[in-house]
Amino acid sequence: MTRKNFAVGQSLARNDAREKVLGRMLYTDDYEFGNMLYGATVRATIPHGLITRIDIEPARKIAGVFGVYTFRDIPGTNILPLVIGDYPFLAEEKVLFAGQPIALVVAESREVAGLAAKKVKVEYQNLPAVLDVFQSLKENSPKIYGQDNIFKRYRIVKGNIEKAFRQAEIVVEGKYQTNYQVHSYLETQAMLAVPAADGGMTVYGSMQCPFYVHDAVAAVLGIPYNKVRIVQTTTGGGFGGKEDVPSIVAAHASLLAYLTRRPVKIAYSREEDFISMSKRHPGYVEIKYAAKKNGKIIGAQVKYILDGGAFATLSPIVLWRGTVHAAGPYSIENVLIESMAVATNKVPGGAFRGFGQPQVCFANESLIDELAQKLEMSPKKLREINILKIGDRTATNQKITYSCGLEKVFAKVCRQADYEKIYRAEKTIDKEGIYRRGIGLSVSFYGVGLGAGGRYLDRAGAYLQIQKDATTIVAMGNTEMGQGALTVLAQIAAETLGVPYESVKILPADTTRVPDSGPTVASRTTLMSGNAIIDAARQIRQNIDYIVRQMLGAKNNQPVLSDGKNYFVKGVSRKKIPYQEVIKKCYAERLNLSANGWYAAEETSFTDEGQGIAYPVYTYSAVAAIVKVNTLTGEVVVEKIVSGHDIGRAINPQQAEGQIQGGVLQGLGYALLENLVLKDGKIVNPNFAGYLIPTTDDVPEIVPVIVEEKCPFGPYGAKGLGEPPLIGVAPAIVNAIYNATGWRIRELPALPEKLLEIKEKLPLTK
Amino acid sequence: MTRKNFAVGQSLARNDAREKVLGRMLYTDDYEFGNMLYGATVRATIPHGLITRIDIEPARKIAGVFGVYTFRDIPGTNILPLVIGDYPFLAEEKVLFAGQPIALVVAESREVAGLAAKKVKVEYQNLPAVLDVFQSLKENSPKIYGQDNIFKRYRIVKGNIEKAFRQAEIVVEGKYQTNYQVHSYLETQAMLAVPAADGGMTVYGSMQCPFYVHDAVAAVLGIPYNKVRIVQTTTGGGFGGKEDVPSIVAAHASLLAYLTRRPVKIAYSREEDFISMSKRHPGYVEIKYAAKKNGKIIGAQVKYILDGGAFATLSPIVLWRGTVHAAGPYSIENVLIESMAVATNKVPGGAFRGFGQPQVCFANESLIDELAQKLEMSPKKLREINILKIGDRTATNQKITYSCGLEKVFAKVCRQADYEKIYRAEKTIDKEGIYRRGIGLSVSFYGVGLGAGGRYLDRAGAYLQIQKDATTIVAMGNTEMGQGALTVLAQIAAETLGVPYESVKILPADTTRVPDSGPTVASRTTLMSGNAIIDAARQIRQNIDYIVRQMLGAKNNQPVLSDGKNYFVKGVSRKKIPYQEVIKKCYAERLNLSANGWYAAEETSFTDEGQGIAYPVYTYSAVAAIVKVNTLTGEVVVEKIVSGHDIGRAINPQQAEGQIQGGVLQGLGYALLENLVLKDGKIVNPNFAGYLIPTTDDVPEIVPVIVEEKCPFGPYGAKGLGEPPLIGVAPAIVNAIYNATGWRIRELPALPEKLLEIKEKLPLTK
Repeated sequence: MTRKNFAVGQSLARNDAREKVLGRMLYTDDYEFGNMLYGATVRATIPHGLITRIDIEPARKIAGVFGVYTFRDIPGTNILPLVIGDYPFLAEEKVLFAGQPIALVVAESREVAGLAAKKVKVEYQNLPAVLDVFQSLKENSPKIYGQDNIFKRYRIVKGNIEKAFRQAEIVVEGKYQTNYQVHSYLETQAMLAVPAADGGMTVYGSMQCPFYVHDAVAAVLGIPYNKVRIVQTTTGGGFGGKEDVPSIVAAHASLLAYLTRRPVKIAYSREEDFISMSKRHPGYVEIKYAAKKNGKIIGAQVKYILDGGAFATLSPIVLWRGTVHAAGPYSIENVLIESMAVATNKVPGGAFRGFGQPQVCFANESLIDELAQKLEMSPKKLREINILKIGDRTATNQKITYSCGLEKVFAKVCRQADYEKIYRAEKTIDKEGIYRRGIGLSVSFYGVGLGAGGRYLDRAGAYLQIQKDATTIVAMGNTEMGQGALTVLAQIAAETLGVPYESVKILPADTTRVPDSGPTVASRTTLMSGNAIIDAARQIRQNIDYIVRQMLGAKNNQPVLSDGKNYFVKGVSRKKIPYQEVIKKCYAERLNLSANGWYAAEETSFTDEGQGIAYPVYTYSAVAAIVKVNTLTGEVVVEKIVSGHDIGRAINPQQAEGQIQGGVLQGLGYALLENLVLKDGKIVNPNFAGYLIPTTDDVPEIVPVIVEEKCPFGPYGAKGLGEPPLIGVAPAIVNAIYNATGWRIRELPALPEKLLEIKEKLPLTK
Repeated sequence: MTRKNFAVGQSLARNDAREKVLGRMLYTDDYEFGNMLYGATVRATIPHGLITRIDIEPARKIAGVFGVYTFRDIPGTNILPLVIGDYPFLAEEKVLFAGQPIALVVAESREVAGLAAKKVKVEYQNLPAVLDVFQSLKENSPKIYGQDNIFKRYRIVKGNIEKAFRQAEIVVEGKYQTNYQVHSYLETQAMLAVPAADGGMTVYGSMQCPFYVHDAVAAVLGIPYNKVRIVQTTTGGGFGGKEDVPSIVAAHASLLAYLTRRPVKIAYSREEDFISMSKRHPGYVEIKYAAKKNGKIIGAQVKYILDGGAFATLSPIVLWRGTVHAAGPYSIENVLIESMAVATNKVPGGAFRGFGQPQVCFANESLIDELAQKLEMSPKKLREINILKIGDRTATNQKITYSCGLEKVFAKVCRQADYEKIYRAEKTIDKEGIYRRGIGLSVSFYGVGLGAGGRYLDRAGAYLQIQKDATTIVAMGNTEMGQGALTVLAQIAAETLGVPYESVKILPADTTRVPDSGPTVASRTTLMSGNAIIDAARQIRQNIDYIVRQMLGAKNNQPVLSDGKNYFVKGVSRKKIPYQEVIKKCYAERLNLSANGWYAAEETSFTDEGQGIAYPVYTYSAVAAIVKVNTLTGEVVVEKIVSGHDIGRAINPQQAEGQIQGGVLQGLGYALLENLVLKDGKIVNPNFAGYLIPTTDDVPEIVPVIVEEKCPFGPYGAKGLGEPPLIGVAPAIVNAIYNATGWRIRELPALPEKLLEIKEKLPLTK
């Protein structure tokens, strides 16, 4: 007999919607403290050079300026603490990209600070800039990182790839390339640092990862961790862009606050945000499949290069995730994946929803279609043959033994999209023969959490407290950045405590409230914080259940149930006790109604050859895209996207759909629109006038499909959904364009001009 | 074999001393938020009356005024939630004391707010005022509380008091009276309320009891508890004066912040603070002892009346504590104590260090001396015969079975004061015969914590987290108000965790960090929060010890020890592992280094006849005072005070001495100087020009004596020390004056003019 959940699985209203809609939420830039100053950043204007002189005097003289500081004023360490310590908070003798922070100005107003920053004169000796990964890898290239300009490389070796190609009946290969993607969050980077009496620092800001910011502020100030407190303010979007970079902004604000002993705010303009913030890495993928004529893929070889930009930031782990997933969600016996992240004198690449997977998914899902074409087999059929099923093994030789709904989700998506019919239908849809319609598919999988690559960070804490009036507060180590974590986790807390969803409030993330819970990335929040919350709630339930049993005269082993408003024990009494009464009794008995929860992710393993349990569990996804192509202009209209995901359990189906809608649209932008242009290492279009993102006009019909193959260790069976909806969109669209026109795009974004270029070389298919 | 403690028992430096000495600590009035407004309070100017009209228009019209509000604007409940709900946040139809809040003004500056408050016109219909407890108790008196003007009454009945007086060989009796005492904290009442986006409220302020403030703010705004957050700022003294009253100030500030949607600060001037704040209750005690000629006291009868003022505030529990301790720390077979708190149209009485005990201790310790006189026995001897020893029973018939060091502390104090010698010495010490010296004694006991009277509140939580760099943060539910709690509790945390004292930081008290831990009163902080911290630290130690054993190859049952810098296991390895290494390893293993601690006080019991376990444990104290009296002017100079206390264990001996020094001086002020004068119900001297408190010139030689009879359930054996040093000072001084002059003062303070009055009636003894 399974109990029905009263909170989990329900499409309850977002608990932060009202305040957001009413415009009442306070973002960092809305906060003001007494005696507050404003910071501004002086940035490199060239991509590569030696700093020969910094003249701060003209800036310092301006009325209202309280200080101008360089790396020499840093009391702690001048290195952003991340995977690789290479990124100085403020440049010392060298600059490696146009936009790199060199100096900081602090002034009585934002305007004065900005003005003064422009008056700081930096003189350079120019050095030759490396602006392309392939140039960077050349032996005689200028070296900007180590001996070889390679931040990191990985190899995954499964089976015998050479043998596979020898035994292959069909071989396909292709080269694929993707551009930067900008996070385009609504709220730009912003931090407010407030000095404490004891030399400590509290930082309020827009961020995904308070514990990373904690590391950075402790480092730059050289003070103990327990004197640093990081508090997340309402965060207007992250998408990975508030993973590594807020640490820099916070370190800058903290430094200024520390030196002036006054609160200091730094909030970026959109242009500054564009210029300086880590983007999705441009990716270069060479891929080759060995297959049998029956469609069975027996070998996959992938070479994957990420353009890391000037500093490593998160490139090593972005690359790791991309590498692990590079052969797609397929059962392939022989795999060789080689990857590297390469340094260039450009803005650093960093975390972005999908985290190294969209680039390589675009490549392998495109080539799957090309293989199908060559096999004269439907792309659907080819995928059905090869996709991962229970008992299969991934490229890292990880055996999938539970929670794998890929077959199911793929079938549902194809059905919902009416795939076979549209795939085989007449392509031309207007009398003039200008518009063509096509459908494309993709499948993908996504290892939930940090996996073997971030194992030691993959734990989370939570703190719960039921207050005197029976309302509850929850503190957790992950953050809300628009994705609905506050809602979903409040549902989990309510369900486990047995109290109404509305009675649960989640506090802003604060490093002093819960232990380091790792970053809010990798679609790990529901699983990690959800489990930590359950751990805490169960401890509190022991006291609650004890009192309920006492009140109902039940025995110690009889399970106490809740319908969300009342507690009861089946078979003992028909009486249901309102939860408020039970809490009141617990208080009268001085029982502890607070608890500290903890969850460490399931164990993983990983060899130097990339073999092992990469992630404890995967979310499985399938996408069908229907597009209409204007063959005269090259414009592509996405008419419909069916986006399906096996997420174990939808804690809040409506919120899950929201994630799917957002991810689909961001994937659509990645596929067709978003095109950052650099010239001589400088971004030419650092704004939304020049860098186009999808608008409401571009929103296709989005059909969400949710499959629930429960994860045995997920909270109420849930896995994760943050990133998967974006990953497979681009290849599905590109495959649909191919289905519509016969034009195979191997470079993202698929701009109209590129389609017209192909058109010139290739006649339209019938 | 006992382990030596490396942190507990050491006189380590206060961890907040540096910032306080450097003037860096921020008090509430130092905080500023953006868009902040200032509140001011309109108060009753008469002691008793009906409000016939409130004209807010003249105030509202003033430029810079944002609003003027009365009780009609309160969205929640207009009753301060305390023991008895009688005190409105803002007066409705009636005012009951001069100073009662009637309306609130909020303005852009403190000056404008203050000015506008004066412009609010309140018209009254005067009612006859009850200004004296005995008048109040008369049948035909105006009724200001209930049917009889009695807030609360208690009876303690042990044995048969009538029989005792029948069997008595000697009977003494006396009437004693004490005046108000003002807390005279350095920092006046101040609160800053900051509204949250969701309609919630965060309040920062100077306070002892964040959870009381929590109750009040939730009540006045009518919002759930989980939307209210109370954070204590550095608090410049409390002494009980920041127990009940901050709830009113916070409710006022919150109301203004709620109505204006802006941060609002209210900080009282010294005069406003004097006029409005609850004081130590004036006390009236009639006491009668039945004794045998051998000095054995066989009966004690006490009638104890507190002047509660206009509202009940904490009077019922102040009275309860006073009642329980009213027969002193003596083993007396027959006891009758009757007490009541009576309403008058004056400023309310409230919590003050000692909490109803100093008034009655003054009475019974004076009468003990009078009994000794009548018995022709030394006051020392008489006390030795009667004081509580292990196996004895208190007035509530509680058998003392552990941790009773009264005999020991009394003996030590007498020895240190050279009692017998000075007691018997020539009184006149100058040739002219003007100056006389004398010595006086007192003993007292103090039930640690809330006892049976506050049983359901007597629990505390704590939260500990060891951070990545092995520094620790602690959150607790009790507050630092100058007494050194942060230091003592950091020592307990460090000792139990096995880490250096310097690595532990205690966060400001915050109601969202730990569950309701009751008030910071009743000398309960070390015991309650100390035990909660130990509970949390022990949980963390499980993980630490596991890793240490693993690192040293020790078995599961082998105890892991710490010298404060290194962990080690005896008999396994000579190796000691630096604590930072152990913490690092715990992090690498993803072990939880945070925990939530809890402690509920030992059980108590109490019948309607006042019989039972009133408190789980008592601190026992003895005082010897040596005074020099100018018999011409009536001036008394206290030359020396020996103040001894059995506190179970001195966690920090230097801090314990600090508490003794402070308490002695405040007791000296109570005995000799502090004299609040009311005329027609209004305070005539609401400032330190008119209300004298001891200055450095008045500081006698203070000799602290500490006895450590460990409390079995105290943290490292500790009990409590906050209040005891004040309690017995006044009777010891008064007894010393008697010893010097033969003048028996039965009314506090013992002002020179009162001594001279007695002199007129009574010749000097030789």
